[in-house]
Amino acid sequence: MLMDAAGYRDSLRAYKPRVFVNGSRVESVADEPLLAPGVNAVGVTYEFAHAPEHAAVMTARQGTSGKTVNRMLHIDETSQDLLHKLEAVRLVCRVSGCAQRYLTHDALNGIFQATRRTDDAHGTDYAGRFLAYMHRVQDADLTLGVAMTDAKGDRSKRPGQQANPDSYVHITERRPDGIIIRGTKAIVTGAPYMHEFLVMPCRTHTAEDGACAVCCAVPVDAAGVTIVARPAGRPGEAAAKFSAKYGQSTGVVIFDDVFVPHDRVFLAGEHEEGGFLTTSYATHHRHSCIGARAGFGDLLIGAGALMIQANGLDPERHGHIREAMVELITITESFYACGVASSVYCTHDPAGSVMPDAVFSNIGKLLLATKIYDMHRAAHYVSGGLIVALPGPDEDHNPETQASLSAVLGGRADIPAEQRLEVSRLIEDLTVSHQGGWYSVISLHGGGSPEAMKREIWRNYPVMEKVDLVESLLDRGVAADGRRVSKQPGRCCTTGCETPALIAVK
Amino acid sequence: MLMDAAGYRDSLRAYKPRVFVNGSRVESVADEPLLAPGVNAVGVTYEFAHAPEHAAVMTARQGTSGKTVNRMLHIDETSQDLLHKLEAVRLVCRVSGCAQRYLTHDALNGIFQATRRTDDAHGTDYAGRFLAYMHRVQDADLTLGVAMTDAKGDRSKRPGQQANPDSYVHITERRPDGIIIRGTKAIVTGAPYMHEFLVMPCRTHTAEDGACAVCCAVPVDAAGVTIVARPAGRPGEAAAKFSAKYGQSTGVVIFDDVFVPHDRVFLAGEHEEGGFLTTSYATHHRHSCIGARAGFGDLLIGAGALMIQANGLDPERHGHIREAMVELITITESFYACGVASSVYCTHDPAGSVMPDAVFSNIGKLLLATKIYDMHRAAHYVSGGLIVALPGPDEDHNPETQASLSAVLGGRADIPAEQRLEVSRLIEDLTVSHQGGWYSVISLHGGGSPEAMKREIWRNYPVMEKVDLVESLLDRGVAADGRRVSKQPGRCCTTGCETPALIAVK
Amino acid sequence: MLMDAAGYRDSLRAYKPRVFVNGSRVESVADEPLLAPGVNAVGVTYEFAHAPEHAAVMTARQGTSGKTVNRMLHIDETSQDLLHKLEAVRLVCRVSGCAQRYLTHDALNGIFQATRRTDDAHGTDYAGRFLAYMHRVQDADLTLGVAMTDAKGDRSKRPGQQANPDSYVHITERRPDGIIIRGTKAIVTGAPYMHEFLVMPCRTHTAEDGACAVCCAVPVDAAGVTIVARPAGRPGEAAAKFSAKYGQSTGVVIFDDVFVPHDRVFLAGEHEEGGFLTTSYATHHRHSCIGARAGFGDLLIGAGALMIQANGLDPERHGHIREAMVELITITESFYACGVASSVYCTHDPAGSVMPDAVFSNIGKLLLATKIYDMHRAAHYVSGGLIVALPGPDEDHNPETQASLSAVLGGRADIPAEQRLEVSRLIEDLTVSHQGGWYSVISLHGGGSPEAMKREIWRNYPVMEKVDLVESLLDRGVAADGRRVSKQPGRCCTTGCETPALIAVK
Amino acid sequence: MLMDAAGYRDSLRAYKPRVFVNGSRVESVADEPLLAPGVNAVGVTYEFAHAPEHAAVMTARQGTSGKTVNRMLHIDETSQDLLHKLEAVRLVCRVSGCAQRYLTHDALNGIFQATRRTDDAHGTDYAGRFLAYMHRVQDADLTLGVAMTDAKGDRSKRPGQQANPDSYVHITERRPDGIIIRGTKAIVTGAPYMHEFLVMPCRTHTAEDGACAVCCAVPVDAAGVTIVARPAGRPGEAAAKFSAKYGQSTGVVIFDDVFVPHDRVFLAGEHEEGGFLTTSYATHHRHSCIGARAGFGDLLIGAGALMIQANGLDPERHGHIREAMVELITITESFYACGVASSVYCTHDPAGSVMPDAVFSNIGKLLLATKIYDMHRAAHYVSGGLIVALPGPDEDHNPETQASLSAVLGGRADIPAEQRLEVSRLIEDLTVSHQGGWYSVISLHGGGSPEAMKREIWRNYPVMEKVDLVESLLDRGVAADGRRVSKQPGRCCTTGCETPALIAVK
Repeated sequence: MLMDAAGYRDSLRAYKPRVFVNGSRVESVADEPLLAPGVNAVGVTYEFAHAPEHAAVMTARQGTSGKTVNRMLHIDETSQDLLHKLEAVRLVCRVSGCAQRYLTHDALNGIFQATRRTDDAHGTDYAGRFLAYMHRVQDADLTLGVAMTDAKGDRSKRPGQQANPDSYVHITERRPDGIIIRGTKAIVTGAPYMHEFLVMPCRTHTAEDGACAVCCAVPVDAAGVTIVARPAGRPGEAAAKFSAKYGQSTGVVIFDDVFVPHDRVFLAGEHEEGGFLTTSYATHHRHSCIGARAGFGDLLIGAGALMIQANGLDPERHGHIREAMVELITITESFYACGVASSVYCTHDPAGSVMPDAVFSNIGKLLLATKIYDMHRAAHYVSGGLIVALPGPDEDHNPETQASLSAVLGGRADIPAEQRLEVSRLIEDLTVSHQGGWYSVISLHGGGSPEAMKREIWRNYPVMEKVDLVESLLDRGVAADGRRVSKQPGRCCTTGCETPALIAVK
Repeated sequence: MLMDAAGYRDSLRAYKPRVFVNGSRVESVADEPLLAPGVNAVGVTYEFAHAPEHAAVMTARQGTSGKTVNRMLHIDETSQDLLHKLEAVRLVCRVSGCAQRYLTHDALNGIFQATRRTDDAHGTDYAGRFLAYMHRVQDADLTLGVAMTDAKGDRSKRPGQQANPDSYVHITERRPDGIIIRGTKAIVTGAPYMHEFLVMPCRTHTAEDGACAVCCAVPVDAAGVTIVARPAGRPGEAAAKFSAKYGQSTGVVIFDDVFVPHDRVFLAGEHEEGGFLTTSYATHHRHSCIGARAGFGDLLIGAGALMIQANGLDPERHGHIREAMVELITITESFYACGVASSVYCTHDPAGSVMPDAVFSNIGKLLLATKIYDMHRAAHYVSGGLIVALPGPDEDHNPETQASLSAVLGGRADIPAEQRLEVSRLIEDLTVSHQGGWYSVISLHGGGSPEAMKREIWRNYPVMEKVDLVESLLDRGVAADGRRVSKQPGRCCTTGCETPALIAVK
Repeated sequence: MLMDAAGYRDSLRAYKPRVFVNGSRVESVADEPLLAPGVNAVGVTYEFAHAPEHAAVMTARQGTSGKTVNRMLHIDETSQDLLHKLEAVRLVCRVSGCAQRYLTHDALNGIFQATRRTDDAHGTDYAGRFLAYMHRVQDADLTLGVAMTDAKGDRSKRPGQQANPDSYVHITERRPDGIIIRGTKAIVTGAPYMHEFLVMPCRTHTAEDGACAVCCAVPVDAAGVTIVARPAGRPGEAAAKFSAKYGQSTGVVIFDDVFVPHDRVFLAGEHEEGGFLTTSYATHHRHSCIGARAGFGDLLIGAGALMIQANGLDPERHGHIREAMVELITITESFYACGVASSVYCTHDPAGSVMPDAVFSNIGKLLLATKIYDMHRAAHYVSGGLIVALPGPDEDHNPETQASLSAVLGGRADIPAEQRLEVSRLIEDLTVSHQGGWYSVISLHGGGSPEAMKREIWRNYPVMEKVDLVESLLDRGVAADGRRVSKQPGRCCTTGCETPALIAVK
Repeated sequence: MLMDAAGYRDSLRAYKPRVFVNGSRVESVADEPLLAPGVNAVGVTYEFAHAPEHAAVMTARQGTSGKTVNRMLHIDETSQDLLHKLEAVRLVCRVSGCAQRYLTHDALNGIFQATRRTDDAHGTDYAGRFLAYMHRVQDADLTLGVAMTDAKGDRSKRPGQQANPDSYVHITERRPDGIIIRGTKAIVTGAPYMHEFLVMPCRTHTAEDGACAVCCAVPVDAAGVTIVARPAGRPGEAAAKFSAKYGQSTGVVIFDDVFVPHDRVFLAGEHEEGGFLTTSYATHHRHSCIGARAGFGDLLIGAGALMIQANGLDPERHGHIREAMVELITITESFYACGVASSVYCTHDPAGSVMPDAVFSNIGKLLLATKIYDMHRAAHYVSGGLIVALPGPDEDHNPETQASLSAVLGGRADIPAEQRLEVSRLIEDLTVSHQGGWYSVISLHGGGSPEAMKREIWRNYPVMEKVDLVESLLDRGVAADGRRVSKQPGRCCTTGCETPALIAVK
């Protein structure tokens, strides 16, 4: 059953989470204006699954069940799946800014791989439990929040060394029928309007901190769960051309001795596999982030072009304006290309699914994380200073000033001043407001900070293969037949694939 | 008479400007909460002039009168003056974010040069009028707003080609006792809480558009003046650790047939000298901007270091954190160095004052304009994602969540969670809020956009001197005595100074 | 018939071109030491076609003939073909530095498209002639040089305005049996050791300059052809660890009234299609350049890792060294990813072949063009200063110093000093010598300068599609069903493909 | 006595050093063609001291003796001295590429400070010895080489842990009349044509490695000294427009049990002061490097402008060409500005001299080290691809090709082709040849690698002062009087100066 946006909103009424926003208890998430932009943004992922023209990318056939599911809940089986997921994320984020639900996809895929690996290593039965759970989620077309980033406390100390043990979510008790977990996850995207949380470890823990290596599913209104969240976007702000409609909430989620029954537990102390889960989730997630921020790039490119037009400028004649637009395009498409390459050179997991290539995935995320600032700069460059000088929207209806202002604040004569002000406020909303700041910081730190990506790139890159290449050139020169050069036949691609990619005729 | 901050605020009561903010008429600028952060920020420049430890940089002896005046109103006569002004601007902006009043300095210095030049070319008597006016301003210790950026309309058309002639402020009538001006200035920093405006042309106009080449002084409450402004900073926002106290308003100023008597007119149609005025003001202003944004850099550096500490990290051991701090320092101090070099290699104007070297001044402004985005990135990098995930300040007093949150949101055990949250919100305020966005855009476009700086750099750089150097090496090689190499003896510095700089023993 | 490297070298003896290198006539190209590194580098493309492990990428089935041909001579029919060509170019260039022969591929594919288009527009029969010619080339397994970049003379003038008409190759006479061409091509890669030249226009010409819109095939030893070339690599230089073996010659080719029979003429005055040919060639070529420079990146990565090891450093412990290696990897793989994406999102040409996506192809080339300098910087960073301080190889055999030097110039005790010196000289060869300089400049300007790429990116990017997106968000908001948002169903990818890419299961 | 260039060359005949270049013993350094470009480059510093127009910057009054000395041998006493030294270095390097002799200045100033400090701490009498020595050097107008960079062996090990103890120069014996030193310095600039070497430690050593903390002066022909050097520049290469005349040799210097009498020993085991010496030398040297590379920038700017002209382009009309030139200027002048600021905000040493500000000095060096690559890129960008495609100079006299080539290889009609080729070869020489590579690597690693600069920036920056500023804003807000904000009155400049800089009227 594929819900639509209205159905998704209604479905939230079945949950009674304990949610606070701006210091007040939220009675009904589905009806809370401060959260509406977030509900709208997730809603896009439901709505587009019903659009015939988007069906190919927005839905997929789940191999383990044969059912058609929303792309945001699908386990990838092919390069094409990854490419479609990438395109789907870009599609929903270019409309909503950030549709958030791709995190559900990333977690499901990460856990799918990790449960199989854990079972293989420890003889556990997590994979079966998880598959059953996931099928239920797919059938009900739910949205799951990722509760991963622990509060962490003192960054220089391990969990067991923290003054407050609740800085990390951990298992406090193991019962015959399940486990008790306790602690705080500090940054949970979209927390209030999720159906459930997937609790996951945020790093590789040592054996002593094994209690923190826990993965499980918890409904948002389970006993003991408290959500302290920010408003989503800029609800009710008249100047918010975009983020009054679409936005993202971020929440702190406190687990105060929450009971989780066994059929919802997917990892419980296997700390090495917990580390693997962190990495496999991160790889999927960084791949998704690439699509998401490319969608944001689409918004900036379109808005920038409109602003240039309204200002009466022509990129063909004003080289420096074209230059800035080309920079914006180059940044967006070059990190997107890393997502495409990561899809093409994916690796097969023993669980039966595919994982995006880790090097390309991390490079793409690293680029978007650091270059989002350049995207803002380029957007500001082509827009001019008006975006921070324009009087606010209340002024639009001030009879004492409205006529004068709209007479002089227009640009090109054939474009109404209102349209110029509108696009000016859109760019302000996307890049100058706290929503704009959110896009920056979430790009930089969401899914891991740049240092984490650099470590993954280094860890996964086939450096030794390059060393072999150079040694063969140095030590022996290259033989006339050249064939002795490469010790690894077939490794013509450089990112870890074992056979050349096969791509069908277009 | 040097006013202090309280005196400045009181002095505003003597003016009755027609001001609108957020669609409503402001009754008393001095008492308007939405403008208070702006009044506070300008107030710092008054207050510091009374601090003995800052007297050397915050006050100066005005050569034309022999009186001690606020540095923000002084005409520079030496390299040392320029250096002190640069330091003064950094000093007041590191406390207030942006103290705005340095624009008064920049305009006074630009007009001082331009009036002399105009008189020399046209036999006018602007210089004397202006000197008398400026002495009155210095005596009363006023703050003058710079009304320069016209609304502009269609960017591809000249003023005379605009559908609406009021897109540019222009002279509509010349009377025996003065002139009538009309039109709109779109971006006037601090407009509501200025004492007067200095109207200036924003570009070099052609002879046909000579009516736009007008420079004059207009009290903020002159008949026909309307100010439509934004709030200054983030007044009343609990999360605004800094910009609830200090901020900047930006206003649109409409001149609706405003009469200006002759003794306040400093240019009236001399379009070539209008172009010179635009440039000389811009050169002073870009030099000042360097000091201002270095002060902003000081805030980010200090806040970043505090955040790192609160997170329990140590730059000595975490190389990537130190790297980001060094990047922040390097950006800040390398554009500041351009301000220093611009002071050292200043040029003497026939009017008797000095002008910062144009190449270094424009390079410094160009660097800060584009690198402000990297400063934000570095600040975000060292701070972590908490700055956008932290629940708002209303939550601090929510009895249902406060205890749990403060227990887990702390970092290093010996630093209270409140302190960590406080610095986190400060960084959010400075870099993620709309105030942060304002700093970015005003850095990029304030004082001219990057393309304008590049053109000035190219126009002022002694390229031919370098061509001569290379030609002498190519055509003749270098003679044994080497002395024939340089055709311009003494031009060992490369930025247009005619004699080597003389700097006294420290 | 697929030749091997030895066969290729022998095949050159059948040609008697008029070649000058360093002011002297070359008697036999196949035996000339100054050209040997170039012959070796091209030889790698022949040799690898016989290696079973490389067969999938180094050979392909030519659709128009059904024959197996060298990948460097193949007309691409699928995304997979483009991806294999990209991998093949990387493979041969990582061994040879730059194997040059991919230019043949790029020109054949460009002309294949252009001749069909010209025939469609003008009713000519170029396509048939070209197909016959190309099949002969494939059968004989030839290497064709691209004679495209005209001497150009004064850059600000068109061909017809030049003081010397020979600044551009042009048709001087049309005969019943063929044409006469005259003029100079200034930068022809590998000129002396090609079998034939493909003459092509280097820009879109106006109708007046139609005589310059000429494309034809000319054997290197046709009457009237003179080649003035540089040595290939650094032949005979003892310090040249790599480029004494593999290198590239660049030649000026003078066409002094050369007769070309009709069956070798593929464009003769159709100036609009000449512009298309320039662009289609450039798009293929920029795609190939991506693979080539990624191969160069492989060499630097491997050499850098070896140097770090020899110096006794460990990237795990020395964060700044790892950082530089990650930068080198990130640059290389991010422009390579653009080549992959360009392959995936290829477009189908009416001629029956595919063309790499122009946006991704140009972005990839733009990135490598500007970032090759950063690659050198990173390689130098990890290597240390020794690479420019090490005494030359003659010193290795100086009995008076050899023992002392090798005793102290070693690094890690378990790695012989000789090995350290060897890799140090390799990096010097690749990045500090004139060969290193060649890699920089050819990356920057080869296949068009950065400005040309920026114009192509702008011209091909679907900006209006983004404008539509933003307008739909602004004007109408997004409807609940979301489907009205995109006016172009299926355009979820953003680079001009009309249907989503289809990629087979890996 | 100030020598001139000819006198300097003659003075080398009085020394008989054991020098090998390219595996052969050099009989007479003064007459060796392979070293002539190096002798010429140093000669410029002698010659310019006699040019009246350069006297102010090229000579100075030595405070300790009252004599006029060459600027390259002078102990700085004022900001103005530092500024003049900076200008002097730029002046001689813009003519010679790199005049090398400023290293003598940097070492003399570093040792001047360190000997005083050592005496104060240990009651030694190094300062007096050194002063006497230095006066002799000034009187004889010598050039001293800096023998600092040890061979180092395994980078991860200390000197005492090395397999070969000679990896670091160290004291092997202390005699009543002096010391014996042994070991290898791996990178000594200009080694063969120096009069003496100043041996200095290259890092801060531990007490165990105290024997490596040695500073002394050794004539180049002292018994036991062997120099194995590279040719200076590109002597005898016809294509080397510049570096056949001016160049730099780099040598390995082997000290094989060399005796140094006490009056030439300035540090002998005081390891802490050895660390100070390393740093103080480095600070002076990085300041000088800024001037040197700015001179190189002058050459590129002039050559680029000439090439643009010869190509028939006009930066006014071709925006992307102007953009690249502005980038080249911006890079050069922004790091030069750091040198200026470092001079202005210098610190006074107890020894009576001044030291450039460490933060600005290190930032300037860091910028030039990493941006030299961008300078090459910009120079290549404006020059076009011809610089690597142009046939070699032997072709200029080939009667069979000369006429044709010069007819077509010209650019603008009114500029002879020869002039275009000449400037093209100049740019090739400066940026594409191994000389160009040398400039890159020596900029990156000379005077310490970027990581060393970053550590110095961090170590010297007044971070705590910024922390205090922010804490005062956070904890207490800013009081109305503002004066309580800064805990450090007068610290308005941010780089460690204790009083505001005083600069005299220009």
